[in-house]
Amino acid sequence: MKTAYLISTGTELLLGLTLDTNSIFISERLEKLGVKVIGKSIVGDNKENLIKAFKLGLESADVVITTGGLGPTKDDLTKEIACEVLGIQSVLNKKVEDNLQNFFAKRNRDMPKSNIKQAMFPKDAIILKNSIGTAPGMYIDKGNKKTILLPGPPNEMRKMYEDEVEPLLIRELNLEEKKIATKVIKVIGPGESQIEEMIAEVMNNPNGCSIVLLAHEGEVHIRVTADRKDFKESQENLDIVVNNIIEKTSNYIYGYDEETLPSNIVKLLDKKGKTIAFAESCTGGLISKLITDVPGSSSVFWGTIVSYSNKSKIGLLDVKENTINKNGAVSEETAYEMAKGALKVSDADIGVAVTGIAGPDGGTEQKPVGEVYIAIAFNNYCTVKKLRFVGDRDAIRMLTAKSALDLIRKKIK
Amino acid sequence: MKTAYLISTGTELLLGLTLDTNSIFISERLEKLGVKVIGKSIVGDNKENLIKAFKLGLESADVVITTGGLGPTKDDLTKEIACEVLGIQSVLNKKVEDNLQNFFAKRNRDMPKSNIKQAMFPKDAIILKNSIGTAPGMYIDKGNKKTILLPGPPNEMRKMYEDEVEPLLIRELNLEEKKIATKVIKVIGPGESQIEEMIAEVMNNPNGCSIVLLAHEGEVHIRVTADRKDFKESQENLDIVVNNIIEKTSNYIYGYDEETLPSNIVKLLDKKGKTIAFAESCTGGLISKLITDVPGSSSVFWGTIVSYSNKSKIGLLDVKENTINKNGAVSEETAYEMAKGALKVSDADIGVAVTGIAGPDGGTEQKPVGEVYIAIAFNNYCTVKKLRFVGDRDAIRMLTAKSALDLIRKKIK
Repeated sequence: MKTAYLISTGTELLLGLTLDTNSIFISERLEKLGVKVIGKSIVGDNKENLIKAFKLGLESADVVITTGGLGPTKDDLTKEIACEVLGIQSVLNKKVEDNLQNFFAKRNRDMPKSNIKQAMFPKDAIILKNSIGTAPGMYIDKGNKKTILLPGPPNEMRKMYEDEVEPLLIRELNLEEKKIATKVIKVIGPGESQIEEMIAEVMNNPNGCSIVLLAHEGEVHIRVTADRKDFKESQENLDIVVNNIIEKTSNYIYGYDEETLPSNIVKLLDKKGKTIAFAESCTGGLISKLITDVPGSSSVFWGTIVSYSNKSKIGLLDVKENTINKNGAVSEETAYEMAKGALKVSDADIGVAVTGIAGPDGGTEQKPVGEVYIAIAFNNYCTVKKLRFVGDRDAIRMLTAKSALDLIRKKIK
Repeated sequence: MKTAYLISTGTELLLGLTLDTNSIFISERLEKLGVKVIGKSIVGDNKENLIKAFKLGLESADVVITTGGLGPTKDDLTKEIACEVLGIQSVLNKKVEDNLQNFFAKRNRDMPKSNIKQAMFPKDAIILKNSIGTAPGMYIDKGNKKTILLPGPPNEMRKMYEDEVEPLLIRELNLEEKKIATKVIKVIGPGESQIEEMIAEVMNNPNGCSIVLLAHEGEVHIRVTADRKDFKESQENLDIVVNNIIEKTSNYIYGYDEETLPSNIVKLLDKKGKTIAFAESCTGGLISKLITDVPGSSSVFWGTIVSYSNKSKIGLLDVKENTINKNGAVSEETAYEMAKGALKVSDADIGVAVTGIAGPDGGTEQKPVGEVYIAIAFNNYCTVKKLRFVGDRDAIRMLTAKSALDLIRKKIK
């Protein structure tokens, strides 16, 4: 099995200004290719530490992949250090220089002089195109050690990985035919330890598969991986285990692998030819944001009233002032009227409303922070569910949004 | 200067299922305390690798802080391994066991048997309260080596860090009086290399301060740090450099340190006693979500119409059908009428509308993906700005939202 060592550079990754999402993305993709990530190092924009990490990576793995440090600023050192560690000269690439000039011309901006640095490359390196930003990547093949340098901005790095790096790795590392089979089962409702109890039998006898549970924003993802002598055998082993898990958890499964709860809802609505409108209070637009993260959601999503104030609940959703005065803005009755209102002001088939107390303020003994009402209306039907979540503002808002989507999923089914 | 070594555990961190936000948060907080993070290791739920990381950490730093692996499942190994490496016995804590029983009782759930593991602790460890989840943390003091074990879920870890760990570190590490002074200047508009050119003079002569630029979702954060013989001298050095940078970039600065663009807008509106309503098309609720991330935003935020479909633009915002037919839903004219509509249907003082093409589909040669219109209306005034962004769907939506907020900021000022 081929191995990889990942290096993420940038002082900001040690100071805590930003997340290292890059090595995570690359780990996931490499695993699918059957390349094992044996180590991960995070270093600042510091020459000495970067050299150490480079040497360690080159000593221990077949391929070293770095992200970051390819930009035009003084802190961007990765290319220079790769040349130094590998003993390769740096040369100007005229074509890349022209592309850089074009990039800035298209945006009606002059190219800052410092950007010329981005057209310098290790001699004989293969240049990897950056279709989003200004910093190209590169691939350096020296003996049996391969080095790949990628830009730091996640969207640039991802596009480059998908378009350029993956085909290159398959070719250059002579990756054998795909051997590993993987499936992620996505569950919503029960917690991690409850899921572990449900599938304890399978986990105790996993048929040679690895089973990993991950709790994330109210969901639990069950990742099953089989690594046998060939893909067919891996797939067969995987299927047995996956089917066993599905049997035990089927009530809570919303999807598999790349599927997300919002993408699943959009697909379901599209299949049934139904449209949806929301009335969001405590989630403040988050449900709509999640739905419209899905390209093509416009075919099923009419729109939303983010009725954060009582005035907007009354003015736009026809919630009766008396209902709010009597029961409060966070109540079964208000949620009911909000959902009915969403249906009324729109021509959507389904109206969904949420109202709750996201905190940190606004809770009382009767209605504590975390109390949430979700209403779903269609035709003459309307149902309201009361839920209570524990956590901070962000967590309560996300759990509310996810629960609303899950309720919709169950109702559509 | 005291040093720390961070270990993040969890196979999911190597497989790419989740982000290691924990070590980032801790790095940032430690830096503020004047504790230097000298290394970071990410390991799977693998006994052997975890032991190696532990030993390395204990050898090289004054304090080792781990996150994750304190839960009830079989994969949760951190506590057991800490006992093994440090040569300490594990004992049952009755009080923690009772707390666990209460946690589940409050949620009307039986405690899974496996959770009892969470009440076992290294002998003489100080237990750190988890006010959100079930896994307490702990502090182990052995000779001159300190070990702190924290739970993996970020919201639990953060609360525990703030409430328990920080005071403990200050006390137990005998941290000298604060020496380091730091300021983050937050800028929106120009790119990283443009900012570097603007402040090139300061960067070439930084008065002994360190200056780090970070580009993040359309913003650039300029972090300046001074580390001199005492806090007063650090602060004096910092002030000179910060003032120089402010002078060069003042047109683009929206805030400092913990301030975010949305929190700044909420504060500005509150100060002026103005309320705001949005009409969002391509951003699909994202602007509202960002505004309502800010606790207390209800005092200035009337609500939003997420008018994702033409029907909702016409039906709720009174955009003329003819305007859309003639100019398209993504046009100056439609944005104008949406903002006017937001003002009309609400009783807010300011109406803001965005419409654009977020992609990946829907672009044409005349109106490519990334073309966006932002309109701001108040009283009888309405202005529309046309922008063009490059990037994927997520990036275009976020840049649009940020630009809208920045325009609002400029108008309010």
